[in-house]
Amino acid sequence: MKLARLGPVGEERPVLLDGGRTYDLSGLTADLDGAFLAGDGLGTVRTAFEAGELPELKDFGAQRIGAPIARPSAVVCVGMNYAAHAAESGSQPPETPILFLKTPNTVAGPDDAVTIPPGSERTDWEVELGVVIGTRAAYLDSPADSMAHVAGFVLGNDVSERQYQLVDSGGQWSKGKCAPGFNPVGPWLVTPDEVDHTSLRLRSWVNGEPRQDSTTADLIFGVEFLVWHISRYLTLEPGDLIMTGTPQGVALSGKFPYLTAGDVVELEIEGLGRQRQEFVAY
Amino acid sequence: MKLARLGPVGEERPVLLDGGRTYDLSGLTADLDGAFLAGDGLGTVRTAFEAGELPELKDFGAQRIGAPIARPSAVVCVGMNYAAHAAESGSQPPETPILFLKTPNTVAGPDDAVTIPPGSERTDWEVELGVVIGTRAAYLDSPADSMAHVAGFVLGNDVSERQYQLVDSGGQWSKGKCAPGFNPVGPWLVTPDEVDHTSLRLRSWVNGEPRQDSTTADLIFGVEFLVWHISRYLTLEPGDLIMTGTPQGVALSGKFPYLTAGDVVELEIEGLGRQRQEFVAY
Repeated sequence: MKLARLGPVGEERPVLLDGGRTYDLSGLTADLDGAFLAGDGLGTVRTAFEAGELPELKDFGAQRIGAPIARPSAVVCVGMNYAAHAAESGSQPPETPILFLKTPNTVAGPDDAVTIPPGSERTDWEVELGVVIGTRAAYLDSPADSMAHVAGFVLGNDVSERQYQLVDSGGQWSKGKCAPGFNPVGPWLVTPDEVDHTSLRLRSWVNGEPRQDSTTADLIFGVEFLVWHISRYLTLEPGDLIMTGTPQGVALSGKFPYLTAGDVVELEIEGLGRQRQEFVAY
Repeated sequence: MKLARLGPVGEERPVLLDGGRTYDLSGLTADLDGAFLAGDGLGTVRTAFEAGELPELKDFGAQRIGAPIARPSAVVCVGMNYAAHAAESGSQPPETPILFLKTPNTVAGPDDAVTIPPGSERTDWEVELGVVIGTRAAYLDSPADSMAHVAGFVLGNDVSERQYQLVDSGGQWSKGKCAPGFNPVGPWLVTPDEVDHTSLRLRSWVNGEPRQDSTTADLIFGVEFLVWHISRYLTLEPGDLIMTGTPQGVALSGKFPYLTAGDVVELEIEGLGRQRQEFVAY
């Protein structure tokens, strides 16, 4: 299933997308949030859809696409999780996952404009596979337990300001990861049965020119390992988002210029849809 | 004013504490959260209290004390913000604030037991002045604008696992800051008019023996500077919590042993109350 949230900021309506048709979920849930996921909301949706009980939204018109999940309680990010990206950042591949957090209010719609912070000269893109947690995960015993806690997958852009992240920060990356709108997510939440998350092509472009082109098969630490590992250090709540890391091809490498006002970033992950953001001045 | 949340986990009742008396706020708000603070909830409470309209809770009995704020959207922490603590940690005092995040689900009541993560040998305490945000703060112009966005102050313990924070982390501290219950907060939210936040004694003890004993006058970066500074990197939401950093006297210094099951940590900030946590095995 592909779930989405359509409508103006703060008034998104939960929907199911199927073969070009849009079905209204607002009779089943007010929002696609942690409570919905934890209460087997996906199972309820599937049952209602298969029974033909979901009302179709016809003539729904052009709607803004919101993030496919309401604001999470935490956005947990994994750093340096592709060997070639670690190399372009001047680092060795890590021996254990490197975790940092984005504030949840960075989450935005996949096509929302992104504001470059005032004075910023090093705003960068990062296409990433995102994992949405379905049920609370704490101290899992093994990676084999992980997928039972995963609601689905999303495309995300872990937008970064490298001066803030690496220089002004004293070394703690979150300072360059949390500006408003710095986490476009979506367009869809895709349930695990619809994609092979171990082998998805992920790409990004700036003004139509290719930047990143890799596959989740190259993740140093895969999804099952990450959910288990993270659960040993913090409790993952329903609706939380894990951003699994970005492959090579970002501006930090020195091969491409940083973003300036007017630039358009596009991102895509096979099966998870496509994003398009205009970067604008503050 | 001193506000608190009393009752079992997840069922806390908002109250006003005044001179040994407890007044019920549940007629004014369901909880002490961001929406309450952003809607001038403190002003509403003050008006109702001064008009004698708040019902007193008599024979309320012994109640668990919850964190005095409902789960924030973000817990923003400041590292190395006392010169002597930077020194005991082997670091120079920072030239600009070092920011990192705790997940909001670490927030717990001030006297709740804290679970030592399984296998942990380096669980540590950190008494800190906490700042609660009252209204959204984004790109503030100057530190002079900060206090208009502050709802009040709280006592907090930024519990840390040093192996996770400094060794297993690849250098990103959040990994050692987010275990369940690792942020006891309270007992009270105290409004800014009741304390001089620039000069508050803050102390901690382990099993009755003194550990930290300092004053917020020694903060390298004070409250007004921090709120302004942080707002330049991320948007602070109503109900968010800033933990301003800890002074010298933690186990990381090598002068004291790390915590083991059965240890009791007590913490106090002048005017902000006292905490007592038993540390227990997983």
